[in-house]
Amino acid sequence: MSKLSYKDAGVDIAGADAFVKNVAALAKATHTSGVVPQGSEYAGLFRPSLQGLRDPMLAATCDGVGTKLMIARDCQSYRGLGQDLVGMNVNDLLPSGAQPLFFLDYIATGKLDPEAMQSVVAGIADACRLAGCALLGGETAEMPGVYAPGDFDLAGFAVGLVDGARLPDPKSVAVGDVVLALPSTGVHSNGLSLARKALLERGKLRLDAHIETLGGTLGETLLVPTAIYVREVLALHTLGAVKASAHITGGGITGRATRLLQAGQRLRMAQKTYDIPPIFELIAKSGNVDMEEMRRTFNMGLGFLAVVSPETAQRCQGSAFFQVGSIVAGDTGIDFV
Amino acid sequence: MSKLSYKDAGVDIAGADAFVKNVAALAKATHTSGVVPQGSEYAGLFRPSLQGLRDPMLAATCDGVGTKLMIARDCQSYRGLGQDLVGMNVNDLLPSGAQPLFFLDYIATGKLDPEAMQSVVAGIADACRLAGCALLGGETAEMPGVYAPGDFDLAGFAVGLVDGARLPDPKSVAVGDVVLALPSTGVHSNGLSLARKALLERGKLRLDAHIETLGGTLGETLLVPTAIYVREVLALHTLGAVKASAHITGGGITGRATRLLQAGQRLRMAQKTYDIPPIFELIAKSGNVDMEEMRRTFNMGLGFLAVVSPETAQRCQGSAFFQVGSIVAGDTGIDFV
Repeated sequence: MSKLSYKDAGVDIAGADAFVKNVAALAKATHTSGVVPQGSEYAGLFRPSLQGLRDPMLAATCDGVGTKLMIARDCQSYRGLGQDLVGMNVNDLLPSGAQPLFFLDYIATGKLDPEAMQSVVAGIADACRLAGCALLGGETAEMPGVYAPGDFDLAGFAVGLVDGARLPDPKSVAVGDVVLALPSTGVHSNGLSLARKALLERGKLRLDAHIETLGGTLGETLLVPTAIYVREVLALHTLGAVKASAHITGGGITGRATRLLQAGQRLRMAQKTYDIPPIFELIAKSGNVDMEEMRRTFNMGLGFLAVVSPETAQRCQGSAFFQVGSIVAGDTGIDFV
Repeated sequence: MSKLSYKDAGVDIAGADAFVKNVAALAKATHTSGVVPQGSEYAGLFRPSLQGLRDPMLAATCDGVGTKLMIARDCQSYRGLGQDLVGMNVNDLLPSGAQPLFFLDYIATGKLDPEAMQSVVAGIADACRLAGCALLGGETAEMPGVYAPGDFDLAGFAVGLVDGARLPDPKSVAVGDVVLALPSTGVHSNGLSLARKALLERGKLRLDAHIETLGGTLGETLLVPTAIYVREVLALHTLGAVKASAHITGGGITGRATRLLQAGQRLRMAQKTYDIPPIFELIAKSGNVDMEEMRRTFNMGLGFLAVVSPETAQRCQGSAFFQVGSIVAGDTGIDFV
């Protein structure tokens, strides 16, 4: 019987080491002043700047990109997934008002495709720079037998820092408050299972089909990366109190916006203040998905919402945020008018 | 054409919500005093206790359990995986001397099996308590089409706190220093691809086979969870300076122990001071894996190593650590004698 080695078992440590070396260079380019360079071979080390914080708190998130990665795989276009992964995590830090400090990624594959996965990591690194956070570490796992060749999964983790003395107070949301919004870049990383079913199965569309209203192919449009809202939201926090805010993800605009409300409050959304990207109309039409279900699943053009007082809203003119609605009295719910 | 909903697309939000509610109770039972209870629906919040730290630093790790989850799946025994996931992460904080603060988990499945995955989370929660860290959050993703039914993956993420003024200094490792060790509980979560190939493919053994030398079935033995070394290692740090230490994971005892050495140093390991668990002999024999490859892949019975001065070693008698070797002059390498 011939000798068996770890490489025979489908795990190529030397190949993985080369990949790790390449991504280490990509990660290093994201390193902010907080990263402790000597580190440890086991853990990334980060020295948070605590100056001026009365009650330093850490905020932490964990998320993946869902079935969007199947579209990337089918289009052989991986670069945007990195930004999706970072965006899904760092944007979730923002409702606490936390500033992202660092990010870690988990990449699992059946057999490492170094080119595709380096493309993912390059996207992660670019997005970390956009978010002002360091790519502090990560894990790349080759798991022959769990993932088919070409298949993979991504998970991300972000840690941020916030002054507990300045946390948003959702209970302060009051009738008369203004709802501000940031536009989404498209579907972001939620609802892709429904989008795929509607567009590809029911609508029998192909990912490489050029679609006039989309201004590009279906695949390109679906793969536009999740917007990263860090700079805009942290800037908003410097302009005045953000009473509550929402990253529009699972549950869609309906689910996420509703949770901004206190008892006896409705949200009145002025549909004319923003555009619904054409991809959503295509999904609704191809899949015969009704508007209510669309709104319960997708962001419908709005990626982030923030509730502020009318006075604060005044000060936000000229910022990236625009006024999209207001809090009115009534039973909990949303009117799109 | 009938109306299409998110649930038709294979994603059962209501079912996932019930699961999330159940695991929230499990997580809550791990919450230490640092967890900020109101939190945020988007991010977990944690207030670190910074008292007495001259230079507070965060340490962060990310890891999975590798193909060990295929054995758990085949044995339909999921409980231990949670401890594997936590152990792989929190033990990686320890070479920095960091105390684990909190943990987050990522669980991805094709179709959520609530019973199996709650069993995983229950194991994660128990292990977090063992490690003294809070299960602060996590993500459960249903990804029809990426994972086959019954298939899943796990990733974990841990954050710890350490005083930068008291970081270990691996350069202080000197000839004459003592190497202390903690026993492993078995294969832990590394080398399972090789173990499976050797035992199941080459050796044609079955996971449910009762094997005399193992004192149980093969599956049970392989699934013994990764030891969690937090208490023992943090206690060691209070007894004296730990110059360098290693969590014995990928690269095995050879790879991990070698990196403890400075130039011109060899590690002399006294084989008689510890037992090699019988599972390793079975793997070597079944797969015709030579001892060098075994040591480059597996922990071979030692899960954690720490280098201390002879004076500190004296003070450690009666601790969980035992003396397993010493640093001698010579070319970089290890002698097992």
